[in-house]
Amino acid sequence: MTRIEDLPVRADLRGLSPYGAPQIDVPILLNTNENPYPPPAELVADVAASVTAAAAGLNRYPDREAEELRAALAAYLDAGLAVAQVWAANGSNEILQQLLMAFGGAGRRALGFVPSYSMHRLIALATGTGWTGVDFDAERALAIVEEQRPDIVFLCSPNNPTGSALPRGVIEAVVEAAPGIVVVDEAYAEFSSAPSALPLLAGHPRLVVTRTMSKAFAFAGGRLGYLAADPALVDALRLVRLPYHLSALTQAAALAALRHADATLAQVAQLRADRDRVRDALRGRGFEVVDSEANFLLFGRFDDERKTWQGLLDRGVLVRDVGLPGWLRVSVGTTQECDAFLDALGEVTGQ
Amino acid sequence: MTRIEDLPVRADLRGLSPYGAPQIDVPILLNTNENPYPPPAELVADVAASVTAAAAGLNRYPDREAEELRAALAAYLDAGLAVAQVWAANGSNEILQQLLMAFGGAGRRALGFVPSYSMHRLIALATGTGWTGVDFDAERALAIVEEQRPDIVFLCSPNNPTGSALPRGVIEAVVEAAPGIVVVDEAYAEFSSAPSALPLLAGHPRLVVTRTMSKAFAFAGGRLGYLAADPALVDALRLVRLPYHLSALTQAAALAALRHADATLAQVAQLRADRDRVRDALRGRGFEVVDSEANFLLFGRFDDERKTWQGLLDRGVLVRDVGLPGWLRVSVGTTQECDAFLDALGEVTGQ
Repeated sequence: MTRIEDLPVRADLRGLSPYGAPQIDVPILLNTNENPYPPPAELVADVAASVTAAAAGLNRYPDREAEELRAALAAYLDAGLAVAQVWAANGSNEILQQLLMAFGGAGRRALGFVPSYSMHRLIALATGTGWTGVDFDAERALAIVEEQRPDIVFLCSPNNPTGSALPRGVIEAVVEAAPGIVVVDEAYAEFSSAPSALPLLAGHPRLVVTRTMSKAFAFAGGRLGYLAADPALVDALRLVRLPYHLSALTQAAALAALRHADATLAQVAQLRADRDRVRDALRGRGFEVVDSEANFLLFGRFDDERKTWQGLLDRGVLVRDVGLPGWLRVSVGTTQECDAFLDALGEVTGQ
Repeated sequence: MTRIEDLPVRADLRGLSPYGAPQIDVPILLNTNENPYPPPAELVADVAASVTAAAAGLNRYPDREAEELRAALAAYLDAGLAVAQVWAANGSNEILQQLLMAFGGAGRRALGFVPSYSMHRLIALATGTGWTGVDFDAERALAIVEEQRPDIVFLCSPNNPTGSALPRGVIEAVVEAAPGIVVVDEAYAEFSSAPSALPLLAGHPRLVVTRTMSKAFAFAGGRLGYLAADPALVDALRLVRLPYHLSALTQAAALAALRHADATLAQVAQLRADRDRVRDALRGRGFEVVDSEANFLLFGRFDDERKTWQGLLDRGVLVRDVGLPGWLRVSVGTTQECDAFLDALGEVTGQ
């Protein structure tokens, strides 16, 4: 049998493991920060009708520029953006990959503050871009960027897995000082009361704000990520994007989902309320919990977080071991799922 | 206004133009080798029902491994392949990108025989892989591979834009001699009477056969490409693939399309018959036409192919200028579209 080591895989990829949370079939899934509420019925009906219409023309390639979808995303962002300032792809992962292909690559270096979304590092690796991970420190962030002069800086607000939002002043200072591009990953923006970086786009052509429909939009299965940036930066991505990268079905379904944004985002208020309720309950029991502006909580501390993770799993609750010794991350589920998590945690820890 | 040159785009991308045939709205589209027949009604109904079912769970991430879809693709190929030998992505472009990321990159080199599918070169470029294009010569192909020792060899059978199929002996000799991986792009396999490279997979762990549902399957808008290879080679792609790259909608729709393969592929016989009819008609009028095993014809010669292209466009017929002086490529349309093309060509050239 051929092993992966027998193949001429790129030297810098050897020995790595594929990214991915375990996909385990248990009753309560609180490990990938999905919106736990199914899409509203009216949205499902609209997606079905839209995709059915698109299916009749599947023999033709889709609109390579996804103009209508990008216009709808610009309207949703409500930040006075033109279509030319918005770009979409199959999940924000593909957005990040296009950014790293256009502005990173061999001989270039990306810098991120850790712990953060681990795909920033992994996509840097896959695109041959150097990677520097620096412990986050709001006071030192600017000095580090000035000192290291990376080609790409990743900021994440709210950050994953901590849930912390960045002060707008930090983002602005980094954007002003960075010699290359600055990517502000706002995957969890809809859950946050902190200001977005979108208003900074005016006058900062090297700033990129990335978003996703996977979280607040209850559209993780639809795979739609997007960004807002200067039109010239979007033009640069066209040099590396795969032609026809967004299927006609994806474009039709995402457009339908955006037409029902109000209904979907109504769930966000409930998720924020439950997030704060779970946070208070955990603290009341003596756990440490990081303040969160997202739809998850980082909590601890555990002598052996792996044991707690397994204990919860044994009780049908899947949370995320993000590789931070002493800590676990739990997504905010439905109100009932949050209660079930708190009950199971009590049983496992006696706390 | 910021220009692309003002941004820190990778040096080797500067000055390039994005790939893409003009998307012009005219009555007769014969420029991107789509299947001109709309998907059969029963397929559209099944896609609609399948996607509607999937839409209810869009808040959850899709199956990251697309197991059910890969099993259906393996069954369709009917070559005794296990699920572990099949991999799928958003169009064969993403398949090619994953191959180049895993086995190419900085300091590595891909070799292709030209003229061929231009995305081979462009994706090599985007992934920082060196590129060597060599004029195709069946007699010399083996010697060139032995001499150049590229990390990746692209073969294309049937080839685009010529339509020629490669003799199995040439493929086998190259696979035996190549020090790296060999990618046989069989995007047009269903239109060909030449043998596939699939039987060569046994015993050749560095061989990859790529396929697409964009052409014969009338699924260009659905974006589904796939490959067959050794399970270890598929494992290597997991190191660079974006997690959850295939949406739940894509997986559901492609599965539905595969259930109706017999109905779709029944259109292929008509397309082959019309291909040969158009070829004979063109030759009868004194044009040169390359023998084609695909769903398009390369024909000429023209003193100014751009002028003929424009003349056809003025008459509502869009064909492809593939950048070969003296030649144009026409996709096989419906029987009526083929006739309209022949009529328009007569008017434009008087031939």
